Amino acid sequence: MEKTLIFGHKNPDTDTITSAIVYADLKSQLGANVEPIRLGDLNGETDFVLKYFPVEIPRLVTNVSAEAKTVILVDHNEKQQSADDIDDVRVLEVIDHHRIANFETSDPLYYRAEPVGCTATILNKLYKEKGKNISKEMAGLMVSAIISDTLLLKSPTCTEEDVEAAKELAVIAGIELDKYGLEMLKAGADMSTKTVAELITLDAKEFTMGDSKVEVAQVNVVEENDVLGRQAELEEALSAIIEDKGLDLFVFVVTNILTNDSTAIVLGRKADSVEEAFNVRLDHNKALLKGVVSRKKQIVPVLTSALK
Amino acid sequence: MEKTLIFGHKNPDTDTITSAIVYADLKSQLGANVEPIRLGDLNGETDFVLKYFPVEIPRLVTNVSAEAKTVILVDHNEKQQSADDIDDVRVLEVIDHHRIANFETSDPLYYRAEPVGCTATILNKLYKEKGKNISKEMAGLMVSAIISDTLLLKSPTCTEEDVEAAKELAVIAGIELDKYGLEMLKAGADMSTKTVAELITLDAKEFTMGDSKVEVAQVNVVEENDVLGRQAELEEALSAIIEDKGLDLFVFVVTNILTNDSTAIVLGRKADSVEEAFNVRLDHNKALLKGVVSRKKQIVPVLTSALK
Repeated sequence: MEKTLIFGHKNPDTDTITSAIVYADLKSQLGANVEPIRLGDLNGETDFVLKYFPVEIPRLVTNVSAEAKTVILVDHNEKQQSADDIDDVRVLEVIDHHRIANFETSDPLYYRAEPVGCTATILNKLYKEKGKNISKEMAGLMVSAIISDTLLLKSPTCTEEDVEAAKELAVIAGIELDKYGLEMLKAGADMSTKTVAELITLDAKEFTMGDSKVEVAQVNVVEENDVLGRQAELEEALSAIIEDKGLDLFVFVVTNILTNDSTAIVLGRKADSVEEAFNVRLDHNKALLKGVVSRKKQIVPVLTSALK
Repeated sequence: MEKTLIFGHKNPDTDTITSAIVYADLKSQLGANVEPIRLGDLNGETDFVLKYFPVEIPRLVTNVSAEAKTVILVDHNEKQQSADDIDDVRVLEVIDHHRIANFETSDPLYYRAEPVGCTATILNKLYKEKGKNISKEMAGLMVSAIISDTLLLKSPTCTEEDVEAAKELAVIAGIELDKYGLEMLKAGADMSTKTVAELITLDAKEFTMGDSKVEVAQVNVVEENDVLGRQAELEEALSAIIEDKGLDLFVFVVTNILTNDSTAIVLGRKADSVEEAFNVRLDHNKALLKGVVSRKKQIVPVLTSALK
């Protein structure tokens, strides 16, 4: 039986890495020949998780078609977020919780998407549907993914199903949800050792809004000053990217995972659209966005309508 | 609670019509406000089924956005096979067993596709997952859909899961699978009374393959000559459609449900792609496709790769 690779998106986060590992576990229990891999480096948070619930770190594979003819995608479907050579392999399955776009197959496939906060919440359900056992390690990885994607169940993307799954999995994993969750989020939120270049690329996504090219990058912190204390340097780097990519707007969002507020550094000729979108005043290119934590649900939609 | 419409593809067949009815039954049991509708006229086979297991015929609705803001798609996803105004409504769910193409959403959704022979096989599973009751009528509709889509379990699209589901549902429906199945297929296979216009639109689907616009229509027959005896007339009508829609290729497939072979009539400037795809020679625009019964599994994939 030929091997099938399982992987999540580029710039991997905790949900993407753990979902590959966890779904590989379930598929193996069902008799499939699969290997979880990753398309990029682990971040600090994911590193913490894979040490806490010790599992092997998936191999880094950049050219997936050199290793397999068939793949399974988790936590993404859009082509530009996937392996560069995704068109050279056959996608057998997708397990995801995002919108569907820029995705096409020539054959029928297994596609399971649900509008929940985290891929792990769907995987937890699949174990039950298949009547398979969830080990302590796999439960630990899944609950970590839910904590990560929902900022400890506080993000507006979090659904009732995510909360139920997290509680259930925390018991199997033998952790206290709040205590472990905060520890895990903090492990990913130490920005003091990151370079400015790392900060602005760690989790950056580009969007087209109306006629404007917009990039929104986000970092989670406990100590805001680790990032905001370097504003002059950051602005220099952001200006270079704006120039280089021809952007109309760059919004760099620093999210405090303890207060659940964000501070945005805003540059570009459409900077005033942020003032309009959030009803704030930029002071030295900076504004506090009270209660804003989700790029997907609280930033992209309002910015999109301000720019239309 | 606002109403959500549930519907299958244009040129409805038995799986598309019954899946809308059956999924509406399940969603209603789960407390949703839904109505199954249809985008076109019933064919003879479906008419037989809805009389045998008496249920109300879904309303014909051509302008779905005039009636609802949200919809659920069954048995299809490609935009050109759906309601003309599909872009004006929000797709909440898709239950399907086809490839994914020309489908895009701006929000996360519930998407359940499995590579099985029939949507009904997935629906049967959903009843179990949700712990809901399957009535005799709903079982009858589902087993009829499986018989229709798999040509009485003989098509290469038929999987172990379809066979299991058909056997299980036949018991609840109180029918003998082979006896009822052949009677049902024959009810849909009498083409002697159809006009040429009816023959080529009865079960026609449009596809984008590479840069080509392709339409593939299929009819099931017991008496091939009822159709092939009218080739001249058929070609005239097909040419008019090619002209009208700007198609690059029209493949009209006549499938004999007793021998499980098909004859294709092929027109359009990309006609040679059929010769390449099936390794056959067109003789008077016609070729025998030995053992080919499935558009989805035996026609669309090979044509797609020939046209890329």
